Amino acid sequence: MTAEELTAALAAAAGADALADPDDRRYWRDATESQGVEARPDAVVRPADAEAVARVVSWCYANGVAIVPRGGGTGFAGGCVAETGGVVVDLSRMTRVRAIDPGQWRMHVEAGLRTSEVRRIAREHGLMFPPDPGAAEQSQIGGNVATNAGGPHAFKYGVTGAWVTGLEVVLPPGDLVTVGGPLRKDVAAYDLVGLLTGSEGTLGIVTAAWLRLLPAVEATAVVAAAHPGPREGCAAIDALLATGLVPAAVEYLDGGALGAARGSYPFELPDDAGFLVVAEVDGTADEVAAALPEAEAALGDGAVAVAALGERAEVAALWRWREGVSHAVEAVHGGKVSEDVAVPLDRLAEAIEATAAIGARHGLDTCSWGHAGDGNLHSTFMIDPRDGGQLDRARSAAHDLFAAATALGGSISGEHGIGIAKRGQLGLQLDPAALALHAGIKRLIDPKGLMNPGKKV
Amino acid sequence: MTAEELTAALAAAAGADALADPDDRRYWRDATESQGVEARPDAVVRPADAEAVARVVSWCYANGVAIVPRGGGTGFAGGCVAETGGVVVDLSRMTRVRAIDPGQWRMHVEAGLRTSEVRRIAREHGLMFPPDPGAAEQSQIGGNVATNAGGPHAFKYGVTGAWVTGLEVVLPPGDLVTVGGPLRKDVAAYDLVGLLTGSEGTLGIVTAAWLRLLPAVEATAVVAAAHPGPREGCAAIDALLATGLVPAAVEYLDGGALGAARGSYPFELPDDAGFLVVAEVDGTADEVAAALPEAEAALGDGAVAVAALGERAEVAALWRWREGVSHAVEAVHGGKVSEDVAVPLDRLAEAIEATAAIGARHGLDTCSWGHAGDGNLHSTFMIDPRDGGQLDRARSAAHDLFAAATALGGSISGEHGIGIAKRGQLGLQLDPAALALHAGIKRLIDPKGLMNPGKKV
Repeated sequence: MTAEELTAALAAAAGADALADPDDRRYWRDATESQGVEARPDAVVRPADAEAVARVVSWCYANGVAIVPRGGGTGFAGGCVAETGGVVVDLSRMTRVRAIDPGQWRMHVEAGLRTSEVRRIAREHGLMFPPDPGAAEQSQIGGNVATNAGGPHAFKYGVTGAWVTGLEVVLPPGDLVTVGGPLRKDVAAYDLVGLLTGSEGTLGIVTAAWLRLLPAVEATAVVAAAHPGPREGCAAIDALLATGLVPAAVEYLDGGALGAARGSYPFELPDDAGFLVVAEVDGTADEVAAALPEAEAALGDGAVAVAALGERAEVAALWRWREGVSHAVEAVHGGKVSEDVAVPLDRLAEAIEATAAIGARHGLDTCSWGHAGDGNLHSTFMIDPRDGGQLDRARSAAHDLFAAATALGGSISGEHGIGIAKRGQLGLQLDPAALALHAGIKRLIDPKGLMNPGKKV
Repeated sequence: MTAEELTAALAAAAGADALADPDDRRYWRDATESQGVEARPDAVVRPADAEAVARVVSWCYANGVAIVPRGGGTGFAGGCVAETGGVVVDLSRMTRVRAIDPGQWRMHVEAGLRTSEVRRIAREHGLMFPPDPGAAEQSQIGGNVATNAGGPHAFKYGVTGAWVTGLEVVLPPGDLVTVGGPLRKDVAAYDLVGLLTGSEGTLGIVTAAWLRLLPAVEATAVVAAAHPGPREGCAAIDALLATGLVPAAVEYLDGGALGAARGSYPFELPDDAGFLVVAEVDGTADEVAAALPEAEAALGDGAVAVAALGERAEVAALWRWREGVSHAVEAVHGGKVSEDVAVPLDRLAEAIEATAAIGARHGLDTCSWGHAGDGNLHSTFMIDPRDGGQLDRARSAAHDLFAAATALGGSISGEHGIGIAKRGQLGLQLDPAALALHAGIKRLIDPKGLMNPGKKV
């Protein structure tokens, strides 16, 4: 098929105004760009509505053309890179709020609405949408659903999927299908909503979602406790969880991550701080006032410094700094290979130490930080992207990391998904029978293998 | 195959001491007994461990014998009734707690452990397992997982699946497979844990589960508000949700259910009470003390009576009474057909009124009660089980009810599942493409159709 034929067919399916330029490099990449992952798609289409998505999928499926859904392009796994060509389906024009029902704590939104907008709209109605993945200003809710995105507040509130009660999706060969809805309970069918959530566009394209919301919390406060190293820091986390408090978030930074980011740390940090634990408590103002000293006492035991931050501006400053950690680490050498393994909580200190040991073995500067309470590390090998040898060594190190995490009873991905980045690694984690089932599900729903090919499976 | 051959094969697979008597009528039934649903299995086997379950499934699958998993037998859908014969696999001997990790808020238990034991063991460690399905004294955690059981506290805490992070299952043709584990975050694979949860034994047999726990709440209190009717009661629920409180549970009883159960109501109830709303708040003692008057004010507006119950004994008495409602309703005429539709919360009053109207149309005494906050009704047609005409009319009424619930954007099952009771009704709710996908998943995992045949699909 010629490029002209492809373009004409997509224009017929979605309208001429829906075509974008496949030479625009924005459509070639996601946040794995610094690892050199990029590919030019054969075409880019930006449908205005779900019906147009269905027509695009229908035509592509009938004509053997690969379909690569794209949200905000903030993924860390190459999930929206059209590695083998095909059509990028960019959802960013589909931003309608189909319904907001504040009294019922729910909303119905199209896939292209940015995560920060979902959160803002909820807030305007006195509600909150708890998931807070890292790049919420650019990421879209459809992409969050497709990757089952997490974030710091997943500790108390769960990942994106915990807030999705229904989906509108386009499934091969082009069916616009609704599963679930504005319902809080539904056990009639197999959990198709759950199956599609986190499927990384390899089973279908999410076009809209029903989201569950909660009343906004009145107050938050943060304790930041600096400890000498991971063992002491993880013991402090154990002490925090033993209080009976349910923190909203429990984060950590190891010494390497602190080293990269300490220059912009908004509070005092002694030189002997080798590990930082950050925990947020939330609730009514009274609840937070009661919880903050308790969290401070638990995390502060044995700490080299501890700060209880109860002012709104302090909490905001801390989280703004925390969001910048990834960039600060990247800035050290200009690039990084950062993976997101998860382990049982009691293995967290071991996994942090294993990350450091693996990096050292491969001769790479290494650090980790992440969602301590969920046992979810961002294990990172810092590289100079102009040095191909470093990138190769980092990829080998990542493979060792996946093996180490699964040996600790963990997962190769707590947040980012498989995408391209972790292709072929799932066998480290799944039994052969489960792996066969996994592949069978892909074949069942996408028999031609055209939905985001080469990803996830 | 003769009965002797079957018995010999099962004895070889699971040990002679694992055989039970298929003439024992306990194995013929679940809680649908009063509707006359029962069947004699060809054999009953009670494996002592997961490996024995795998050997039983392996032999049955190779020999074309149907496999019907059985938990506590408390289901309301006939899900464990061996309608077409085959082997009942009773999990009740598998009650080991494989691990309890209080510091990590989790436990690993075998399928046959009773729900009340799971809750008790958590409590002994200062933790709680929030799901509280109705028959927790008899039901087993494996059955809870297989049906994704709910309960009153699902409003705040979610259904069973929200607390399952990993499963050990036996899948056809007899593979003992682990998916997930003691992990709080895992997006590597498609959500196989979620797919198997709520699959009613039609895809495999759950042999063990990793459960997430929470610190036990310090205090609970209940508001019980009597209103003239469903419209006023549902308006009070709206007012409660508008306060910003997140109640642990929001229950209701309509006039018919109140009529059946009011004799044992442990508090004052005026004669003009036509609808009861019960809401629980929980948290620290201070939190509960702050929340109780707020909930009382919201639910009490327009009420004919309102009671704020802050004493432990009062709360316990209220819930004990609430648990007896189902039996009280059944006692009115000796039997009932009780369905568990769910609707969007803003359609709850309509669904309650539709239940009454459908019952009246079929000439049946009718009532409903249930999990108001989740829009989950137990819509009930009261029958004399000796009167076959009433049972037939109740079944017709149930069909009308499913149609009414789905027309309101709801589900034919919020809690009980499909089982036998709702067979053939799923098309009311699912798109044809989703229905085909549903059937495809069953065929993929159970190509011979031997796992709990005739249920769910």
